[in-house]
Amino acid sequence: MKPLQYDSVIPLYHQLKERLKESIDGGYWMPGDKIPSENQLMDQYSVSRNTAKKAIEELVQEGSLYRIQGKGTFVAKPKLQQSLMGFYSFSKVLKEKGMNPKDIILAINEVTPTTKVKEGLQLTDDNDVIEVKRLRCADDEPYILESSYIPKSIISDKEMLKKVGPISLYDLLEQEFNIVVTRAKEAFEPVLIRGEESKYLQTREGLPALLLERIAYDAKGLPVEFCHSIVRGDRCRFYTELT
Amino acid sequence: MKPLQYDSVIPLYHQLKERLKESIDGGYWMPGDKIPSENQLMDQYSVSRNTAKKAIEELVQEGSLYRIQGKGTFVAKPKLQQSLMGFYSFSKVLKEKGMNPKDIILAINEVTPTTKVKEGLQLTDDNDVIEVKRLRCADDEPYILESSYIPKSIISDKEMLKKVGPISLYDLLEQEFNIVVTRAKEAFEPVLIRGEESKYLQTREGLPALLLERIAYDAKGLPVEFCHSIVRGDRCRFYTELT
Repeated sequence: MKPLQYDSVIPLYHQLKERLKESIDGGYWMPGDKIPSENQLMDQYSVSRNTAKKAIEELVQEGSLYRIQGKGTFVAKPKLQQSLMGFYSFSKVLKEKGMNPKDIILAINEVTPTTKVKEGLQLTDDNDVIEVKRLRCADDEPYILESSYIPKSIISDKEMLKKVGPISLYDLLEQEFNIVVTRAKEAFEPVLIRGEESKYLQTREGLPALLLERIAYDAKGLPVEFCHSIVRGDRCRFYTELT
Repeated sequence: MKPLQYDSVIPLYHQLKERLKESIDGGYWMPGDKIPSENQLMDQYSVSRNTAKKAIEELVQEGSLYRIQGKGTFVAKPKLQQSLMGFYSFSKVLKEKGMNPKDIILAINEVTPTTKVKEGLQLTDDNDVIEVKRLRCADDEPYILESSYIPKSIISDKEMLKKVGPISLYDLLEQEFNIVVTRAKEAFEPVLIRGEESKYLQTREGLPALLLERIAYDAKGLPVEFCHSIVRGDRCRFYTELT
């Protein structure tokens, strides 16, 4: 094992982190493998406890490692890579990767839209919208907390929306309500996971997440859905191609 | 002023936050305006100090408000909207919005590439890369901390890179080294701003940011740049269109 460069301008914790990352990315350690303890890393690399701690902590924060209280630190599954090109479907992405998608419906309610939802859906009246709130899981682990807001005026029977899950929301809109989503605008920004969200997502408050807002339009160009998603940053990564 | 709904399932702090956000987004308050103090909000909306505090704190975290110690809480400038469609240029986006772009060069160094940079640039040997580290500002406020890594083999004269800033890096690569960037892959994920980054970006450690990684390719399909950016989440928002 090559020793760290103790006289380098690059901090030791950063060098150690790079080494651990190479072992993970290079496949030397596999998802679920236990990595050496702090004490072992201190011995192996001749570093202080603080250095070992900081290297591990950053990799935990980035989602490369996870801790189990009293058991140790383990290699996490690689992040789910999602393309932003064209219409992606969370379920489809998972299936392609051999993972098992599952939606848990948390609520289907008539609610008063916030100003943002109202503007996004171009609602001029004081009509309610229907909120479909879902927890979207991969292999039984929650990845995304998602609320879709749909104008009540285009949904003749709210009960039909309960079928969502085994069938995608857009397929359901098409089959049951003859609404065909043809394009969408999407905006996203990084946020911190909040208390209530962390409970649903079974993760820690204050961890980084992506807030995704999508407005979907039908063939006539009318907005039919405002979707608000909180995506776990430790489990997902997005990519796109520019030409 | 419509009172809050005290018997609603929606928490009061959330209702108050919505009201404040409407005043900001609706243009009732303008960037730089001072908003009412905690005490005034407690009076106006008949809420507890905790409720007022929490509503303000979330809006500060989201970048809608900012605090000046001993002065009060003020409305922030709206976030910079950047498209992920096609090749965007940070400077160009700013100019279109009437803002003044400025790059501060922090370092131009030969460095040993990390495994990730090496793989991204498809380097097979142990050659160094040239790092161009910049702080990208809008109206003198830092928005992005960016490092571009370029294979040393394609840069005949490192000194030429110092011209970057008034002229874009890609224009410089074309003019000085005959390298034409024609496409790029980009990946992004939410992260927390770290200690050292927060100093450059003049913001708080632990705030949300977007980590953007781009690999740019020349006309022959060879990778010519690996770019690593930390984008302030309280100042920037990205969007894209899906068809």
